[in-house]
Amino acid sequence: MTTTKGEETRRNILHSSLAMASRLGLDGLSIGTVAKQVGMSKSGLFAHFESKEDLQLKVLETGVDHFIRKVVTPALRQPRGEPRVRALFENWLTWSEYLPGGCPFIAAAAEVDDRPGPLREFLASSQKDWLGVLAQAARICMEEGHFRSDLEAEQFGYHLNGILLAHHHCERLLRDPEAEERARASFEELMAGARPA
Amino acid sequence: MTTTKGEETRRNILHSSLAMASRLGLDGLSIGTVAKQVGMSKSGLFAHFESKEDLQLKVLETGVDHFIRKVVTPALRQPRGEPRVRALFENWLTWSEYLPGGCPFIAAAAEVDDRPGPLREFLASSQKDWLGVLAQAARICMEEGHFRSDLEAEQFGYHLNGILLAHHHCERLLRDPEAEERARASFEELMAGARPA
Repeated sequence: MTTTKGEETRRNILHSSLAMASRLGLDGLSIGTVAKQVGMSKSGLFAHFESKEDLQLKVLETGVDHFIRKVVTPALRQPRGEPRVRALFENWLTWSEYLPGGCPFIAAAAEVDDRPGPLREFLASSQKDWLGVLAQAARICMEEGHFRSDLEAEQFGYHLNGILLAHHHCERLLRDPEAEERARASFEELMAGARPA
Repeated sequence: MTTTKGEETRRNILHSSLAMASRLGLDGLSIGTVAKQVGMSKSGLFAHFESKEDLQLKVLETGVDHFIRKVVTPALRQPRGEPRVRALFENWLTWSEYLPGGCPFIAAAAEVDDRPGPLREFLASSQKDWLGVLAQAARICMEEGHFRSDLEAEQFGYHLNGILLAHHHCERLLRDPEAEERARASFEELMAGARPA
């Protein structure tokens, strides 16, 4: 597949914007600030994106693409069951340091959760997908006998996601040097409670 | 203690601003928007606050006052041990619905975590206090024999805070009707793992 110059430019804009959004939130992205960051004119940028909201939405979509490539896909290459759950957890920790301001979805969630519209819809739906990936990984653990058969897979996913949110908070706001250790300890507690008695 | 008219005005401004910050984040507060909200002139508002940052800081301080009054103090009136931990958890759930946009600290954390300065410092330090309250409540449970003696109290507090963050996410972004049920299930798992074998 060949990539045209226009597609490449567009991809560079989106990548820069995603890094900006991780630090400044979606609201930190405007056609003006992004144009400055990538060294283009505003009208040059408008050739790629219809509006600020269109840009913000495409940035979220780009973030989800990266997330799937860095967190989900490599975990699916691991053996079914516990190794896959561990890979999802570990890949997420790496993900949270991939962009300069941490996970862009956590920053965006705080911004859009009271603001109905396409950004909120897209973010909520991609977060539901992520919780679904975690629940499905737990279900496979049950099938493989790694987790007890009466586990509630959705609840496991929800709880695991909470450990990831706590990690982000601890790492980024508190700059706690033990952040990763704490996240791992919580994860092991959760795993221990999920295994057959 | 008598309250002067000026103090009352100031308190009203801060209360309105806190509600705004819960929806729009700290960055949604400007001298202009707040003046409009409370029906004052900008110069009238400047008589109370030196700058936008001063206003934002005072709003965070107001939030912490409310939090202590609504979450921490009533829990301290509960019997030592498990009832107190439960009260902290339940009061936090109530707290997260007290303001129109949910917990203002979670919104603020995403905004200031990459921005060194007094807002970040104040927020990080108050969050450390909160984690300290949770850890201390766990330590008392250990003393009372409600929790096992080899529990790591700090880790318990960290993990409990993660459950609260997950709840906020699930309730506000995903509007999951089972959000509270899920938070309670995670909490009970955490409690079960903390009790003596």
